[in-house]
Amino acid sequence: MAKRIAAFGEVMMRLQVPGYELLSQAGTLNYSFSGTGVNVLSALARFGHTGFLVSRLPANPVGDAAVSYISKLGITQKYIVRGGNYVGMYFLENGFGVRPSRVTYTNRQESSFNTAPEETYDFNEIAKNVDIVHFCGITLAMNDSVRRHMKRFAKAVKEHSGTVVFDCNYRPSLWGENGYEKAKPHVEDMLHLADIVMMNEKDAIHVLGMTTEKETREEQLTDLIPAVAGKYHIPVIAGTHRSINGDNTHSLRGFMFKNGTFTFSKSLTFSVYDRIGAGDAFTSGIVYGETEGYSPDKTVGFAAAAGMLAHTVVGDTPMSSESDILRAMTESLGDVER
Amino acid sequence: MAKRIAAFGEVMMRLQVPGYELLSQAGTLNYSFSGTGVNVLSALARFGHTGFLVSRLPANPVGDAAVSYISKLGITQKYIVRGGNYVGMYFLENGFGVRPSRVTYTNRQESSFNTAPEETYDFNEIAKNVDIVHFCGITLAMNDSVRRHMKRFAKAVKEHSGTVVFDCNYRPSLWGENGYEKAKPHVEDMLHLADIVMMNEKDAIHVLGMTTEKETREEQLTDLIPAVAGKYHIPVIAGTHRSINGDNTHSLRGFMFKNGTFTFSKSLTFSVYDRIGAGDAFTSGIVYGETEGYSPDKTVGFAAAAGMLAHTVVGDTPMSSESDILRAMTESLGDVER
Amino acid sequence: MAKRIAAFGEVMMRLQVPGYELLSQAGTLNYSFSGTGVNVLSALARFGHTGFLVSRLPANPVGDAAVSYISKLGITQKYIVRGGNYVGMYFLENGFGVRPSRVTYTNRQESSFNTAPEETYDFNEIAKNVDIVHFCGITLAMNDSVRRHMKRFAKAVKEHSGTVVFDCNYRPSLWGENGYEKAKPHVEDMLHLADIVMMNEKDAIHVLGMTTEKETREEQLTDLIPAVAGKYHIPVIAGTHRSINGDNTHSLRGFMFKNGTFTFSKSLTFSVYDRIGAGDAFTSGIVYGETEGYSPDKTVGFAAAAGMLAHTVVGDTPMSSESDILRAMTESLGDVER
Amino acid sequence: MAKRIAAFGEVMMRLQVPGYELLSQAGTLNYSFSGTGVNVLSALARFGHTGFLVSRLPANPVGDAAVSYISKLGITQKYIVRGGNYVGMYFLENGFGVRPSRVTYTNRQESSFNTAPEETYDFNEIAKNVDIVHFCGITLAMNDSVRRHMKRFAKAVKEHSGTVVFDCNYRPSLWGENGYEKAKPHVEDMLHLADIVMMNEKDAIHVLGMTTEKETREEQLTDLIPAVAGKYHIPVIAGTHRSINGDNTHSLRGFMFKNGTFTFSKSLTFSVYDRIGAGDAFTSGIVYGETEGYSPDKTVGFAAAAGMLAHTVVGDTPMSSESDILRAMTESLGDVER
Amino acid sequence: MAKRIAAFGEVMMRLQVPGYELLSQAGTLNYSFSGTGVNVLSALARFGHTGFLVSRLPANPVGDAAVSYISKLGITQKYIVRGGNYVGMYFLENGFGVRPSRVTYTNRQESSFNTAPEETYDFNEIAKNVDIVHFCGITLAMNDSVRRHMKRFAKAVKEHSGTVVFDCNYRPSLWGENGYEKAKPHVEDMLHLADIVMMNEKDAIHVLGMTTEKETREEQLTDLIPAVAGKYHIPVIAGTHRSINGDNTHSLRGFMFKNGTFTFSKSLTFSVYDRIGAGDAFTSGIVYGETEGYSPDKTVGFAAAAGMLAHTVVGDTPMSSESDILRAMTESLGDVER
Amino acid sequence: MAKRIAAFGEVMMRLQVPGYELLSQAGTLNYSFSGTGVNVLSALARFGHTGFLVSRLPANPVGDAAVSYISKLGITQKYIVRGGNYVGMYFLENGFGVRPSRVTYTNRQESSFNTAPEETYDFNEIAKNVDIVHFCGITLAMNDSVRRHMKRFAKAVKEHSGTVVFDCNYRPSLWGENGYEKAKPHVEDMLHLADIVMMNEKDAIHVLGMTTEKETREEQLTDLIPAVAGKYHIPVIAGTHRSINGDNTHSLRGFMFKNGTFTFSKSLTFSVYDRIGAGDAFTSGIVYGETEGYSPDKTVGFAAAAGMLAHTVVGDTPMSSESDILRAMTESLGDVER
Repeated sequence: MAKRIAAFGEVMMRLQVPGYELLSQAGTLNYSFSGTGVNVLSALARFGHTGFLVSRLPANPVGDAAVSYISKLGITQKYIVRGGNYVGMYFLENGFGVRPSRVTYTNRQESSFNTAPEETYDFNEIAKNVDIVHFCGITLAMNDSVRRHMKRFAKAVKEHSGTVVFDCNYRPSLWGENGYEKAKPHVEDMLHLADIVMMNEKDAIHVLGMTTEKETREEQLTDLIPAVAGKYHIPVIAGTHRSINGDNTHSLRGFMFKNGTFTFSKSLTFSVYDRIGAGDAFTSGIVYGETEGYSPDKTVGFAAAAGMLAHTVVGDTPMSSESDILRAMTESLGDVER
Repeated sequence: MAKRIAAFGEVMMRLQVPGYELLSQAGTLNYSFSGTGVNVLSALARFGHTGFLVSRLPANPVGDAAVSYISKLGITQKYIVRGGNYVGMYFLENGFGVRPSRVTYTNRQESSFNTAPEETYDFNEIAKNVDIVHFCGITLAMNDSVRRHMKRFAKAVKEHSGTVVFDCNYRPSLWGENGYEKAKPHVEDMLHLADIVMMNEKDAIHVLGMTTEKETREEQLTDLIPAVAGKYHIPVIAGTHRSINGDNTHSLRGFMFKNGTFTFSKSLTFSVYDRIGAGDAFTSGIVYGETEGYSPDKTVGFAAAAGMLAHTVVGDTPMSSESDILRAMTESLGDVER
Repeated sequence: MAKRIAAFGEVMMRLQVPGYELLSQAGTLNYSFSGTGVNVLSALARFGHTGFLVSRLPANPVGDAAVSYISKLGITQKYIVRGGNYVGMYFLENGFGVRPSRVTYTNRQESSFNTAPEETYDFNEIAKNVDIVHFCGITLAMNDSVRRHMKRFAKAVKEHSGTVVFDCNYRPSLWGENGYEKAKPHVEDMLHLADIVMMNEKDAIHVLGMTTEKETREEQLTDLIPAVAGKYHIPVIAGTHRSINGDNTHSLRGFMFKNGTFTFSKSLTFSVYDRIGAGDAFTSGIVYGETEGYSPDKTVGFAAAAGMLAHTVVGDTPMSSESDILRAMTESLGDVER
Repeated sequence: MAKRIAAFGEVMMRLQVPGYELLSQAGTLNYSFSGTGVNVLSALARFGHTGFLVSRLPANPVGDAAVSYISKLGITQKYIVRGGNYVGMYFLENGFGVRPSRVTYTNRQESSFNTAPEETYDFNEIAKNVDIVHFCGITLAMNDSVRRHMKRFAKAVKEHSGTVVFDCNYRPSLWGENGYEKAKPHVEDMLHLADIVMMNEKDAIHVLGMTTEKETREEQLTDLIPAVAGKYHIPVIAGTHRSINGDNTHSLRGFMFKNGTFTFSKSLTFSVYDRIGAGDAFTSGIVYGETEGYSPDKTVGFAAAAGMLAHTVVGDTPMSSESDILRAMTESLGDVER
Repeated sequence: MAKRIAAFGEVMMRLQVPGYELLSQAGTLNYSFSGTGVNVLSALARFGHTGFLVSRLPANPVGDAAVSYISKLGITQKYIVRGGNYVGMYFLENGFGVRPSRVTYTNRQESSFNTAPEETYDFNEIAKNVDIVHFCGITLAMNDSVRRHMKRFAKAVKEHSGTVVFDCNYRPSLWGENGYEKAKPHVEDMLHLADIVMMNEKDAIHVLGMTTEKETREEQLTDLIPAVAGKYHIPVIAGTHRSINGDNTHSLRGFMFKNGTFTFSKSLTFSVYDRIGAGDAFTSGIVYGETEGYSPDKTVGFAAAAGMLAHTVVGDTPMSSESDILRAMTESLGDVER
Repeated sequence: MAKRIAAFGEVMMRLQVPGYELLSQAGTLNYSFSGTGVNVLSALARFGHTGFLVSRLPANPVGDAAVSYISKLGITQKYIVRGGNYVGMYFLENGFGVRPSRVTYTNRQESSFNTAPEETYDFNEIAKNVDIVHFCGITLAMNDSVRRHMKRFAKAVKEHSGTVVFDCNYRPSLWGENGYEKAKPHVEDMLHLADIVMMNEKDAIHVLGMTTEKETREEQLTDLIPAVAGKYHIPVIAGTHRSINGDNTHSLRGFMFKNGTFTFSKSLTFSVYDRIGAGDAFTSGIVYGETEGYSPDKTVGFAAAAGMLAHTVVGDTPMSSESDILRAMTESLGDVER
């Protein structure tokens, strides 16, 4: 049955230089609206669930454009509050081969989302009407007020027996100096509340300050993740290992730790068109597998294939249907579909 | 000397999403007009022959655009009849890497071509004025009326001692259920009339219902094609084996069976920009080699190189000149030509 | 309070040549999705109501794009049924000055909407959940099956005490020869069911076969519309008189006949950017005025201003907010808003 | 019956800044290929005649693009000779309102057409196969070699009883200092050979050095044109008077002097989209009227309407059909055609 | 002789929806960089002076793009300081006819310019090396720190005997509530320092709180401006009266008050392509007239024509050369320049 | 400390078909302005030096656009002389995979640069004000007049103790038949004047007519370059070996011969986006290394990385900063920079 899934997070405006020019060469930008919550909900809506974004956007033409855009992605806007003045934005210049892509942010601290007053959202009411809620570590990095919203929302959902999904997603540039120290208590608060957590061994080591004597990342993962699950009582932890290859391809391997057991996907290698947002596709796959009662093996395979396909799609937001992903899990390379 | 070459077939409008967006993401389409006959004639016109398309297009702005477009491709429009109401269309969404391209058709049964009344074309007159005529199995899949046109035209050309080229080109989605059974008698009618046939072992097995105990496709090919040539009295049979590789390249190997002997091209491996229509470039190469009196070895090499280059060109229609192809047959990878 | 408003009608794909080129000159098209129902609902959603489109779209990439597009317009897709194979399409070439715009249709009879089987829609269920429903004479012109759907839906809404809006919208090219005769009984069936009717004196004369001895259209209007209201028991009839001026402007005057009284808007004259769909904006204004309990004077002024602004907006679908329209009703020409 | 019409002239590449930016602001150009001959032939082909361009283009990608483009316009390329190295080009920056459009030429003296050797064209052969030939005063301004080609061709056509059309079209920037003196003998040579001449009183005064005591241009016209017709034995002289109005419209009035009688069209006033090439549309109308045996009144009305519509079309080349023009001659302003 | 002219002000990034779509309809933006100082300097550089922008931009890809863009406009970047994090931005949606254009700002208080620390600029050094400096009332509205920079710079220039130009340019939305009161002391500080002031009677009434019994704006102007000049000892005051007409044209009349005498330009009426920045073109014309020692009559005519042409050019920044403006002052409407 | 670096050379207009269409398929072109001198100066300006282009451009809209463009690239236009009529142009059609890119030139002999009269440039004055000057073998191929300019400038710089950089850059199509013989004396003149020379063993063999018994290009290089350095007294000779691989990558290895010692960079292999102009990036790296006093090892590594990155950037002109290049020299493949 279709689940009601909420996500709490900022909607960002992505301003992308088309093709491979730099901002100082081009004269046009493609724009779209995204965010971790937007991406996860859009993917889950495409799989048949109903997705509610809980966020705040200004009542001006930029806010209108954002609402139109996320409606187009299939997300229900019922819990979007209109107010404040700005939408956070970032510029994206596409890299090519050995030249990396560049992201330049505008000041998102002033955004409608990040300046939402205390009583903006009726979390209790929302919590009554949803089954699952998704949070992200990027949101946790914003400011105290946003963190309070986030924790209150997570608690409200728990009180109504909902499922809390938390994606650690530590971004160094957002936390600034001594970032790990600043982040740790907040991440821990969320881990205590979460049922499904997206993270890997790096988060355990750097953010949670755990230690291991293992040296490869695979060994570190299998050493530390069970410890995290035990310490914070987390039923499901999932994540990926990515490697960037010399020939414009990435390799991705997903894992899921549940009921004391690790399950790994195949390592997938594929050409990359748009890397941003691919992690959210993986998350959506894990959540979908759990809502559908998939076996861990199918869930992690589905999530990895969803993540892989998201690298081949324009924009931050995954666009693949369930059948696209199932076909990608099983079939060999195909000719034109007609 | 320049040959007069006709092709009988539908002109389709191709509506392509630019770049790698999906139809539900983008807002613009690139359009062009193509079709097996258009593609083969345009290639042959570029080699110096005169190409006459025998088709029907509506007398409205879409039909005007189609006529302009195929004139731009160098095709003579003298035998294009204007009438009916619609042009068949298809949408193309480009795939990327592991995500395949998608083609979505509109209803082509209602097109001017597929609803052409009995006396639309003066095949006898046309047959008097051409040396070679090209037909395609896609046209054969349309409806009884189109099939009658096609066979009458082929017979008229034979009566005037012209050469009949037939490309089997079986498309499962067009024939529907029990497609092979439905197609077989019509394909056989055409094989009996044809001088040059494009096909491979799959057509022999599936459409013609022939059997072989061989297992590799190469062995099946060399087992079955001579049998087909013998049974239907076909002087020349040619075709390709394609494989799709993991790194966004395809491999292509052409063959030609003539005078009881197989000739194979090298297996060519190359990056693919636009796969649609590449088979028609191969056909044009075989026809050109035959009109020029090339050796089988040169013909099949030329055809394979023509097919390869067609994968690197925008649109369905081959754009390479004879000298482009000859250079691609002989030279190593080149730097900028200046 | 926000009303729940449904509309029954086809979603068309508009394929527009950008700028002022012809189809035989250009190579790209802008596409969007629209339809009388889409346009009216989108306008009403922008005013704060909830709009439900009742229609049928294929479960393929073109249908997906249509659903995404109308979601972006703020329409709720809950009652859109997925099935069938095609979306009706039209090409639009923009005119310039003395050169008129041209519309070329593809075959819409084969569309998912026009081939919907008998039991496609659960009209009883929908009727229970909406307050108002909108129908259009274009839909009535399609085929018997669609007409049956339409009348069944209208009756169901009446049975649940909903309001029926009917826009006569007679299109000669859709009804063909003896069109007025063919249309009359169906239009009359709808008039008997309708609470709000969009029409003017031409519909009365040509479709309903009424006669008048008056000669100017204003006199004919005031002579015939009360007779129509009386004969078919229609509470509200509204419509416009349009004139096309030599300097690329149009003039528009709205009227409303209610409670035995005519109310007219000012005659508005304005430059035209995109004429298609502007009538639907007027309709949305009338419906909105009625839902808000506006005076006839305010309603018809609001509707006329909504219609005027829709001529200045890209695409078929009105994009103006209530405040945009109220400002256009009262203010003089303004400088940049900043 | 369809006439065979040739035109002798250069194909120019037009490089137009899209929209209203200047070359120093923009980064893209739209390109097309045109020329007086191209424009006149394309219009006449659209009316049903067969148009042969007699010109020279390089055998390189730019020449290929030119040939493709004029084929798309419906012109037969049989008499286009391939050779030389360059295509003449001009940049066009669109004006807006009080800011005029700007044209910047590249060096056309080096073009394939302007460097064609003595024996490039087989004028005798061509003259045998055409009914009418069109020449233009711009070509006459190029160099001695081109002038020799032009006069030889005109004489060959006369010898084969063809009709010679000559458009005076004096361009000051091409003739340079003392241009009128330089041009006069060459223009006179052509006038002696011509059956239909496009010119007005300014050409008579400035190029031919005739004098009149009249002061308004209308009086000067009726004073001088009969004198020109008499002196050079020209059966038909036609032309236009244009005025540029303050509101972005132009006014155009056509005239024709034939059998000793002046006929004038109505003065047409219309918004202008693309002014370049509109004179060629007027010429095509005069030639068409003459080939169809229209009355002078209908001919000059048709030509003026053709000229008017050419101002509303993108590019140098007229795109209107005969029915478009006939409708523009008779109908009032229309709504969308659908 | 070429003057060295500085301007102190913010560089804004303009993000413009192409064509006439809204932000919620489109998917691409055109971007450029402008600002009152940028516009005035670019115009003056085009007239032959050297323009130095004094501003602050971030050392990131957006700042790089801004520097490249203003270099392209011909401005010297020697006094641009790199630092801070953001560039102020605004979105522009083009209006059409009765639908006004809309500007939506992002938070410019956080921009590099508006957060420049005390010692950012070496005003003394700059003042030594320039002849004229331009300031704008928009900058004065930013914050105390920017106001301090501005006044220190103006004083430094006065101390080095330079000329100070001040454009009042009161923007209500920037000053907020009680804006006139807040603005007055700062505007007065600048008026005391200024040699050339751009303003009109509205600034005198609203910002300076002066009163008049006159009723028409022309009378108010001639009543108040001499009083302002007297009170603040301002040698030159200039400005415009604009009216917006119903037919998409504006009318503009410039004035200059100097040596106790008013001089007025003709009232110019013209179609408008891009209204933003046109006031800066007028300013540049006044400054240029003064540097060239033009008569007041020629100066105000030149400035008005410069302002008029700026309405016909894409973007905020004037692009006309001196000869373009002189031609527009004297000539009638022209045909294509070739 | 920032050096003052001049370059003498032609500015070309590049007219590039966007994407992968041919000129005969597309309808738009992207344009930019470049040239060996432009490319080298822009790169060096980006590294912090001041770059002066010494060239001649017409005083028309195309010349204005060229000047704007090179200003945008950060080049100082102080020594650009305005005069003459034309800008040299070339068309670029992008290749894909096995289909090579094609460059088609217009006639550059008529350009402003190539027709500059004797006294166009004040080389003595310029030589006083610059530290380094760059020349290119392409310029040397133009005509006698340009060669005279070039040698006079080089001598003037030597007289003022400046550094002369000479890039051999032999282009067969520019020198025509017996090109090596024609080029040799001019190249030798430049080699006698040069301090830094860009060349490799092919130039030594073909242009200078030197011989070697070695067979691999590496051996030929180490055999011949020291001989060249000795014969012409050249302190620094640098260059690259390039190989074009089958998978759309190139490999590049740089070398530098200085003080009797060869230094080689690593062989770098990378995907290629835009190959044109990459050699100029290598040159800029060598010059920069020398100005900064880098070790030969660092210089040649920096130059090779600069060359590599230039292949990944849109357009002829390098866009990488010093830090971009240093990062590319040291780091492994990176994820998105944010």
